[in-house]
Amino acid sequence: MQKPPQRLLMGPGPSSVEPRVLAAMSQPTLGHLDPAFLAMMDSIASMLRQAFRTKNPLTLTISGTGTAGMEAAVTNIVEPSDRVVVCVAGYFGARIADMVRRVGGDPILVEVPWGRPVPPDDIEKVLASTAGPIKAVALVHAETSTGIMQPLDDAIRLAHARDALVIVDAVTSLGGIPLDVDGAGGGEGIDVCYSGSQKCLGGPPGLAPITVGPRAHAALRKRKNPPVSFALDLRLLEAYWGPERTYHHTAPSNSYYGLAEALELLLAEGLESRFARHRATHERLALGAAGLGLDFLAEPEHRLPVLNALRIPDGVDEKGVRARLLAEHNIEIGGGLGPLAGQIWRVGLMGGSAREENVARLLTALRIILGAGRMSRPTRPS
Amino acid sequence: MQKPPQRLLMGPGPSSVEPRVLAAMSQPTLGHLDPAFLAMMDSIASMLRQAFRTKNPLTLTISGTGTAGMEAAVTNIVEPSDRVVVCVAGYFGARIADMVRRVGGDPILVEVPWGRPVPPDDIEKVLASTAGPIKAVALVHAETSTGIMQPLDDAIRLAHARDALVIVDAVTSLGGIPLDVDGAGGGEGIDVCYSGSQKCLGGPPGLAPITVGPRAHAALRKRKNPPVSFALDLRLLEAYWGPERTYHHTAPSNSYYGLAEALELLLAEGLESRFARHRATHERLALGAAGLGLDFLAEPEHRLPVLNALRIPDGVDEKGVRARLLAEHNIEIGGGLGPLAGQIWRVGLMGGSAREENVARLLTALRIILGAGRMSRPTRPS
Repeated sequence: MQKPPQRLLMGPGPSSVEPRVLAAMSQPTLGHLDPAFLAMMDSIASMLRQAFRTKNPLTLTISGTGTAGMEAAVTNIVEPSDRVVVCVAGYFGARIADMVRRVGGDPILVEVPWGRPVPPDDIEKVLASTAGPIKAVALVHAETSTGIMQPLDDAIRLAHARDALVIVDAVTSLGGIPLDVDGAGGGEGIDVCYSGSQKCLGGPPGLAPITVGPRAHAALRKRKNPPVSFALDLRLLEAYWGPERTYHHTAPSNSYYGLAEALELLLAEGLESRFARHRATHERLALGAAGLGLDFLAEPEHRLPVLNALRIPDGVDEKGVRARLLAEHNIEIGGGLGPLAGQIWRVGLMGGSAREENVARLLTALRIILGAGRMSRPTRPS
Repeated sequence: MQKPPQRLLMGPGPSSVEPRVLAAMSQPTLGHLDPAFLAMMDSIASMLRQAFRTKNPLTLTISGTGTAGMEAAVTNIVEPSDRVVVCVAGYFGARIADMVRRVGGDPILVEVPWGRPVPPDDIEKVLASTAGPIKAVALVHAETSTGIMQPLDDAIRLAHARDALVIVDAVTSLGGIPLDVDGAGGGEGIDVCYSGSQKCLGGPPGLAPITVGPRAHAALRKRKNPPVSFALDLRLLEAYWGPERTYHHTAPSNSYYGLAEALELLLAEGLESRFARHRATHERLALGAAGLGLDFLAEPEHRLPVLNALRIPDGVDEKGVRARLLAEHNIEIGGGLGPLAGQIWRVGLMGGSAREENVARLLTALRIILGAGRMSRPTRPS
């Protein structure tokens, strides 16, 4: 295999993975029922509880990507014809709604234009105007497509008052910005929360931590039929992660090694220190972006420090700039998705990538590329 | 992270992974849309076509385990109320039937006692006695729970004569025993075939190669509704692996590196040489097992060389033996599943594990443990 180039990953994820984490992945493979591997699973579950700030016994990692984590949440909670209020403020909210529809649920959208969070008033109105039971309210804590932080507390209280579960997508927030699964919503807590290994956790891509609280666990037990997915069936996964150790799938042990190492690094740094590092790196970027005349898509109070959506200046060939960043500077940043394609760059400052020296490197590279008379569209093929 | 012990993996999978493959996994992570990573995906697809012996354009790896590969086949092909004839000769056939049921399909079982393949006559009878259209016939080429090889050719001709697609589980066969996706069934071919990275391919656990032939591809295009799974939707995956490169999920690049390296090793060795190596290793084991008085579950003509099911001799504490093999000799073998729990050991000779010196090491260890007056049940706690 040709050696992959050494990129600085400052896109929407994955983030650059620390050498210690990469090295852990090349340790000898273990079988999925080896006592040494089962002990590591226990340790991963325990560290994930600390990262999620939860006591939920049902806390584990899905052996799949963040997309599989989202699908695990939806497919286990939503039964056919269940109504689910889905807050859509970007691409990933819309993806949740798609998944709800696929499993036969009835998504009720609370939509706002991309670039803002969903206001609690909008959620309240939809909850009030929807007749009959509502199974869940789904929110994206950190909308990776827009760089928007979604406040959770009011939404949790409103959902619970309506006897609906709360599903939170924390793919891009866990380990990067404050998230308190048990304490959110004034202590009411998030019912199902999932994430991805490759963003602020700084692990290798390919795993999706998830935690399930007591209300959601009761809902799993009360299902009329098992979920449409066997691979993502949380009750089967519970029997594998729990004392029964019932075989379910061949866990990708080498990826688990990487996640375990990344979680150890996270907890050694400390959650609060890690949040502060992400915040400081974002502030450094905001300063530098202003110096380059680049505006944020979002108002300051809604900005995610870990995913920075910057408007493309007029007349700039955005794909050309990204191609040059990659080819000449080995730096990856992301483009816009959906309606924001061609409108924004997405600069991720997550995990191992969230360091001031990386921001400095990116700003220097951008200054070189943009400074040279600003690349006008379409001077370079994309 | 504590260093995992160096096991010799001779269970039902994963198999021991070559150092070169492990080393590849610790190369720097790439983004899922990086041109260097996209080129590697093309190379993986091309190597998988050689391994599967197919020209199918839609050949890729699912970013999930073999279980996800099975679910991808079922969830994409089977629509609600579709009839699917499922050949059940062990645990994994039964799992396919479970998945068919979960997505709303109607599995029609062709069952035989565990330890034999399903005879074509049985399949023919069920096909003849089932009224109305049959969407697919599903077979497990190498039934990992019993060590049985399922002949495919007659089943393929019978299924196609009935206008049914053929789904083949090659999780434990691909790269270990002859499999010819395009040539099977006298050139009629298998319509959907999936595998796992961690068995005879010798890659790291966590990926599931899959290939889709023209008939099955037409069935995907004709679906009334998209599959219940977004994460495993083959048409979305096709748009990511194809020239559109449409974002679908964050591919676990480090695992892909391991698979790419493993496929390079496979093709350098040559498929025929690799099959011969697996066969020779199996014969060495069969000889040694006979010397130890261990019988195979299956008749010689049905035995899988890559997964050897050996009957536990009377009075032997099977769990105790496995525990001692692991603790004292660092060798993993598997126990029985379902009705075969406590009845058999499963000795995998796959990929990097399929070497005569490994068989010699296992036989020596078994001789030591069993020779000492044969461990009687229940002298040791399990």
